[in-house]
Parts: sequence; structure tokens; C-alpha cells
Amino acid sequence: MTEPRPTLAQLTDFLRTEFPQTRCTLEELDGDGSVVVAHPVGEAELRPGGTVSGPVMMTLADVALYVAILAQIGIVPLAVTTHLSINFLRKPRADRRVVARCRLLKLGRALAVGEVYIYSEGEDVPVAHATGTYSIPRDR
Amino acid sequence: MTEPRPTLAQLTDFLRTEFPQTRCTLEELDGDGSVVVAHPVGEAELRPGGTVSGPVMMTLADVALYVAILAQIGIVPLAVTTHLSINFLRKPRADRRVVARCRLLKLGRALAVGEVYIYSEGEDVPVAHATGTYSIPRDR
Amino acid sequence: MTEPRPTLAQLTDFLRTEFPQTRCTLEELDGDGSVVVAHPVGEAELRPGGTVSGPVMMTLADVALYVAILAQIGIVPLAVTTHLSINFLRKPRADRRVVARCRLLKLGRALAVGEVYIYSEGEDVPVAHATGTYSIPRDR
Amino acid sequence: MTEPRPTLAQLTDFLRTEFPQTRCTLEELDGDGSVVVAHPVGEAELRPGGTVSGPVMMTLADVALYVAILAQIGIVPLAVTTHLSINFLRKPRADRRVVARCRLLKLGRALAVGEVYIYSEGEDVPVAHATGTYSIPRDR
Repeated sequence: MTEPRPTLAQLTDFLRTEFPQTRCTLEELDGDGSVVVAHPVGEAELRPGGTVSGPVMMTLADVALYVAILAQIGIVPLAVTTHLSINFLRKPRADRRVVARCRLLKLGRALAVGEVYIYSEGEDVPVAHATGTYSIPRDR
Repeated sequence: MTEPRPTLAQLTDFLRTEFPQTRCTLEELDGDGSVVVAHPVGEAELRPGGTVSGPVMMTLADVALYVAILAQIGIVPLAVTTHLSINFLRKPRADRRVVARCRLLKLGRALAVGEVYIYSEGEDVPVAHATGTYSIPRDR
Repeated sequence: MTEPRPTLAQLTDFLRTEFPQTRCTLEELDGDGSVVVAHPVGEAELRPGGTVSGPVMMTLADVALYVAILAQIGIVPLAVTTHLSINFLRKPRADRRVVARCRLLKLGRALAVGEVYIYSEGEDVPVAHATGTYSIPRDR
Repeated sequence: MTEPRPTLAQLTDFLRTEFPQTRCTLEELDGDGSVVVAHPVGEAELRPGGTVSGPVMMTLADVALYVAILAQIGIVPLAVTTHLSINFLRKPRADRRVVARCRLLKLGRALAVGEVYIYSEGEDVPVAHATGTYSIPRDR
């Protein structure tokens, strides 16, 4: 953990390389260790009835957790999700991005655990809440 | 629940309409109520290191649960996921489809709960295991 | 939801009746809807190595969720847990009570979802984090 | 993993030492690695309405997972739960023991993941389903 913490620009570059197909964008790296990641909402993300598809929010939660961990430990491409649990709370808006705020609950040597609140951009009440665990390579 | 159960062709049509962007395909509807859904694996599904991305498997689990419910209750477009929990167990193969087998643990009036095993096609040992809950509209 | 909200004393009485065997005590009902519930730690709660047993913390999380819901909707004895997910983060202290702070993420007509942080009393860093769902009777 | 696998009698002894307060009993160790653990149901386990309390089933799930792991890796007292997720499916019977059948989904060097079906004794349909993860000490 003696590596310098990566900047927002470095993490953004890494995200483009690691998940070239992702549409998630890193928006904020906060001093307390939390991160904000967003995903656009358009035709491809909507289901009939005008709701954002669950997989879009699961993807967003997973990427937010990953970035929050990398923001702390440095860019370690081999960290992998071992568990993710998500509660869908309310119907997101069809006309706004979905935005995830993630903070870590634990950063151990082998496992990191974080929680993620997902909002329709500009709203106060979460549309989903996730927790997830990543396994961190020992010999990083 | 007096509706006739949909056929594989009817569910496939519905899936294309409801999730037009999905690459999941319905492979089997079994007599015991379980269903098999597959997702191709190619460049878009892989992360560096040659592993299938977590969101692909979460998407597959979510679609498999949805189809397993519709296979029982008939095509009810307004069923929504309320919770999904997934454990990633092993690295999937980069050169095979991922295949989900889902069966329902409970089909109540308001909630359905199911479990999903995900495999690299042709392998015996699961690469992920998920459970999920869908809320079913009351006045279906 | 037109019932007056119960007081701490009323909820404490109810808890003793509903869970006569529980050792959980309701400590706070906060204005923002969060509640604090505690559980003593003694010989019966410890495992070899001096750690508080997982089931004690799961029990505490479940009771905290239940009380947080009743604090909002009034005393409805038939609410039942449908799902609980808990991450154990750190070893709790053997010489302090465990204390749970719960707040609701959603209070719908049919389902309530909440999250719970568990601490060793007096510490800042959580030892566990749980989320749970209760099903609420329709005709309350 | 070169240790001989423990017998049912050895695991029963260990359980009494590790969880002296537990009322869980180990019933079966099966050749395929699954285990069966039971918990009595009496006044102390029931809630008003005649349902078995959630914490009893969470405790049973946790113990079943622990025993299933020890049955494979030998008696390692320092394994700890890192995550447990449980779905409550149906009301258990008030007049029968609850019985858990657990099998491991993964047994890695650092993490073991298992799933647990809980039944009212003698019934075919599960009353709850859990998955859980244990962290295994490296230098066992």
C-alpha cells in the first residue's frame, strides 16, 4: 500500500482499458475514499415501462466497487469480484443518468467490502443499494 | 395462474421484445420448471486476463430468473427484480458460452425466489451461483 | 400508516412479548427514523478466540430491522423477514456490547428494506453490515 | 488438506467445544461432502403465530456451513464467516425440528462458499435457503 494513490485521470484511463465496452464514467474521487461513477440512460438501458434495466445497475455497482478499491490500493488489475448483493428499491427515471456513490466498509489484505448507493442523477432517494466483496491478489 | 404456460418460442419472442439489447438466448424449458439460458462469450464479454466479466454473469442470472418465473405464471411484463445476490466461484473459460440453469425455490402470490447455477458450457463445476427475488404484480 | 408512531417504551414492551427469549434491548429511536438496538456480550455470545458469534450479530441485525419498521408503521406483529444478507467485517471486542444502528432504505406497501451497521459499543468502525427485507401484511 | 477427514463423532465433539451454547446437532456426513445439521424447535425457537424465529434458521445455516467446511479440510477452529445471505421461503412447522442440508460450491485456499437448504423435518419443500462464505486461515 505504499504506492501513490491513482488520480481520477489515471483511473479513467485504466477503466477504458480494462472494461473497453463499459459506458461507465468516473465522476468523482473524494477525500474520504468514496467514489462516484455514472452510466448514461438511453434506449439501450431501458426496458418496456420506461425502467432502467437491472443489469445496468448491477454493472454500475460492480464498476463503482472496483474503482473505489483501486483508488485506495493502486491499480491492481487482478482484483476480482467474489460476491455482489443488490436491492432494487424504486423505479429509476428514464430521462436521467444513474449515478453510484461507493465507499469501502473494509479494506483488508485479502478482501475488500464496499457499499454502493445508486440514484437517478439529481435525486435524493436511492433507486438501488448494493454491497460487494472483491478478492485482492496477495502479492500485489 | 390459469393461463396456459408459454412455450419456448413464445418466451423467446417476448425476451427479444422486452430486452431487445440482450444477447441471452433461451435454450431449454424443462418439465420440472427449470430453464436454461445462455450468453455468448467474445471480445465484448471478456476482461483482461481472459475472464468473463461479472456483469455478463449477473445479466444472465437476472434473465434466467425472469424467464423461469414467466415460464410458470405466463408472460407478465411487469414483474421486477427486487433482490439479486451472486457468488463468483471460479474463472469461466474464455472460449465457451456461459450457461445458466435456474429453478424456482418459491412461487408465491407476491414474490418469487429462484436460484441459478452458471457454468462454462460443457463443464460440470459452476462458475457462479445466484439467488434472486422478483416482485410479481398482484393484479395479473 | 395513520396509526401514531409507537414510543420507545411501547416497542420495548412489544419486543419482550414477541421475542421473549431475546436479549436485545432497544436503546434509541431517532427523529430521522433510525433505531439503535444492543445485545450484551458475555460467555454465551463468545466463541473460542474471543470473538462474538455470527448468529448473535445476525439476530441483532434482524431485530434492529424489525424494530425500525415497526417504529414507522406501528406495531404489526405479522411482518416477517424475507431476506437478510450480512457481511462480517472485523472481529468484535469480547468486552463490549454489540450495538446495531438501522435505517430503512425503502418503506413500501408490501416490502420494507433496511440497512444495519453493527459496532462494538463505543467504536467508530463497523464490525458487520447487513441489509434485510421484511414483508409487510397488506391489510394492516 | 492431507489431514484425514474428521468423523461425525469428532465433529460433534468439536461443535460442543466451539459452540458450547449451540443446540444444533450434526446428523449426517455424506460421501459427496454434504452434511445435515438439525435444531430442535420448542418454546424458545417460536415467535407468536407459531413460526420458527429467523435467527434460529440463520444460526442453523451458519453452523451447517462451518461443519461442511471442517468435514473437508479438517478441524480448523479459526475459520470465520465473512458473508451469509438467507432467503426465508415458507413458514416452518412449529412441531418439528428444522434440518439443514449443506454442500460446498467452492473450496478454495482462502475462501469456501456453500449453500444450505433448510426444511421442517420430514418435509420436501425448503423453508429457507442460504449461501455463505467462510474465510479459511492460510497457514493451516
